[in-house]
Amino acid sequence: MNVDITDLKTVRLSQDGSAVIILDQTCLPGSEVYVSLSSAEEIWEAIYRLKVRGAPAIGIAAAYGIYVCSRQIAANTYGGFCSEFLRIKDYLASSRPTAVNLVAALDRMEKVVVAHSVNPVPEIVELLRVEAEAIRAEDAAACRKIGENCLSLLRPGMGILTHCNAGHLAVSEYGTALAPVYLGEERGYGFKVFADETRPLLQGARLTAYELQKVGVDVTLICDNMASAVMRKGWVQAVVVGCDRVAANGDTANKIGTSGVAILARYYGIPFYVLGPTSTIDLNCPDGDSIVIEERNPKEITDMWYASRMAPEGVKAYNPAFDVTPHDLITAIITEKGIAYPPFRLEDF
Amino acid sequence: MNVDITDLKTVRLSQDGSAVIILDQTCLPGSEVYVSLSSAEEIWEAIYRLKVRGAPAIGIAAAYGIYVCSRQIAANTYGGFCSEFLRIKDYLASSRPTAVNLVAALDRMEKVVVAHSVNPVPEIVELLRVEAEAIRAEDAAACRKIGENCLSLLRPGMGILTHCNAGHLAVSEYGTALAPVYLGEERGYGFKVFADETRPLLQGARLTAYELQKVGVDVTLICDNMASAVMRKGWVQAVVVGCDRVAANGDTANKIGTSGVAILARYYGIPFYVLGPTSTIDLNCPDGDSIVIEERNPKEITDMWYASRMAPEGVKAYNPAFDVTPHDLITAIITEKGIAYPPFRLEDF
Repeated sequence: MNVDITDLKTVRLSQDGSAVIILDQTCLPGSEVYVSLSSAEEIWEAIYRLKVRGAPAIGIAAAYGIYVCSRQIAANTYGGFCSEFLRIKDYLASSRPTAVNLVAALDRMEKVVVAHSVNPVPEIVELLRVEAEAIRAEDAAACRKIGENCLSLLRPGMGILTHCNAGHLAVSEYGTALAPVYLGEERGYGFKVFADETRPLLQGARLTAYELQKVGVDVTLICDNMASAVMRKGWVQAVVVGCDRVAANGDTANKIGTSGVAILARYYGIPFYVLGPTSTIDLNCPDGDSIVIEERNPKEITDMWYASRMAPEGVKAYNPAFDVTPHDLITAIITEKGIAYPPFRLEDF
Repeated sequence: MNVDITDLKTVRLSQDGSAVIILDQTCLPGSEVYVSLSSAEEIWEAIYRLKVRGAPAIGIAAAYGIYVCSRQIAANTYGGFCSEFLRIKDYLASSRPTAVNLVAALDRMEKVVVAHSVNPVPEIVELLRVEAEAIRAEDAAACRKIGENCLSLLRPGMGILTHCNAGHLAVSEYGTALAPVYLGEERGYGFKVFADETRPLLQGARLTAYELQKVGVDVTLICDNMASAVMRKGWVQAVVVGCDRVAANGDTANKIGTSGVAILARYYGIPFYVLGPTSTIDLNCPDGDSIVIEERNPKEITDMWYASRMAPEGVKAYNPAFDVTPHDLITAIITEKGIAYPPFRLEDF
């Protein structure tokens, strides 16, 4: 690799702990801009506008974020601190509804507050920092394990198709879906990656192609509608995707278009792997129908990125940010704890 | 309808016959620009750059085009005229390889020349004009019949998904895939159309959404990767697409992404209809593997339309303009002569 992948930090805490520093992904691939977020509003807006995105990275940003905000709470009593903490937590949780990691990370942070009601506020704040760093460190360790687990299913020289971005930009390090690609690259597997550009926000073109090219992985960008043609040519031996929320039965919410790729993979007889940390599994959610799918502004389809209008003024557009891939289209769900095959018993993880 | 669809002329001959006048589709939906083409180079470039596109419209443009060029041939002898005619024909035929109508229309024009070797050159030129007008008139009649034939399979209130643009902008009038939509609209069927935006050239966003909205059809624009989500919601009862070349066994080349939509339709149990004039059927082509698929400049994916770079500099991209939908994914092929069901016996048309 040209670059050490662990040097690329998507989300981190500033040295003095006063701000969350993120690589603003809306500026990629044109420029690498790091922004410093120190208020709840700035953190909310960064998540909502996808400056930081990817389910695990959102969780980490929210954990660091609520720590940064907690430092600023003026209350001296536990009760005062706690109520302000919960207000900020609810606010940050409202930034994006589909990814489970956001709420899960904030819940973990809340547990720290609840468990230390007898401690002085400054101590609680310090414990929040430790917890946020733990969430980040666990994510980094999980990604590496996910990569190792998936790599055991892949062979050198394979063509691998991925949708959206579940690379290091979506997590702390390595990525989820891209973790086996990076590990394979380190070990000379010579994978050939096809990256769906992933309309409307182009995470595949802007982020996946960018991060893979940067470390020297062989990557070919395609439009989403070319996946079928590429599979028909026999160029794809495995599909790897990340996940934003996995229901107890294995139904998986991920970036819009994922279910279509899964159907194509089934048709062409190509294994379809979902990769993510166990923190993305929501055992409280029985199936895909229970997952709230975020609908975003239709202007992302009709107006965004373009130099001039590409759709007629006033046309209706429908813009769901995610879709649900039913569990029976998934070959395996791969987490840091192992590989689950159908019928998925995710409570065993 | 707000506008009489037959008033919208995609391709026509100038009053004096000296030029082909086309609606420049690369300027849509922003502005309606008509351009006048009077040299072989201008006509070739208009087809190559998709100023005029859609298999039938390309055929009509080429027929008018070679008539316009024939008027300019200086030769007085039949032999001189004929060799120059054939040179221009080969040149125009090279503009786009996949659509059969281009070569078929030029072949028809050549037959006129061959059949009238004893006539004076000016008479041959006049016969070429008559033949070109006949090609256009036959296309208009065929489109209406295609619409009628398909409409017999549809019910009022249906949701209809289409890919790319096979509307009036792709033909002379009405369209192929969109002909039943227009006829249904005239008869109060109240179809709800979902238009795939159709990357990379966005014919769905720029052209289909534009032409349907213009006449008041209920149209919703989606990204290509949203078709699966829309089908899963139960919003689609039929898929209609055009075709660029149909092989003898029913395998169909059409805009890239069509085969993916067909696979989704099969998965969701939605009928998938291919609509086109019999001139699009190439009985000399046994199956899809024999169809030459045009590959276009990767910059159409990485650089076109955007205000700034959406993919990293120097990234590889693969840009096939068409794909082949295998015949076993097609519910019916609908032409002006009727409806063919599997096993397709297209020689009977």
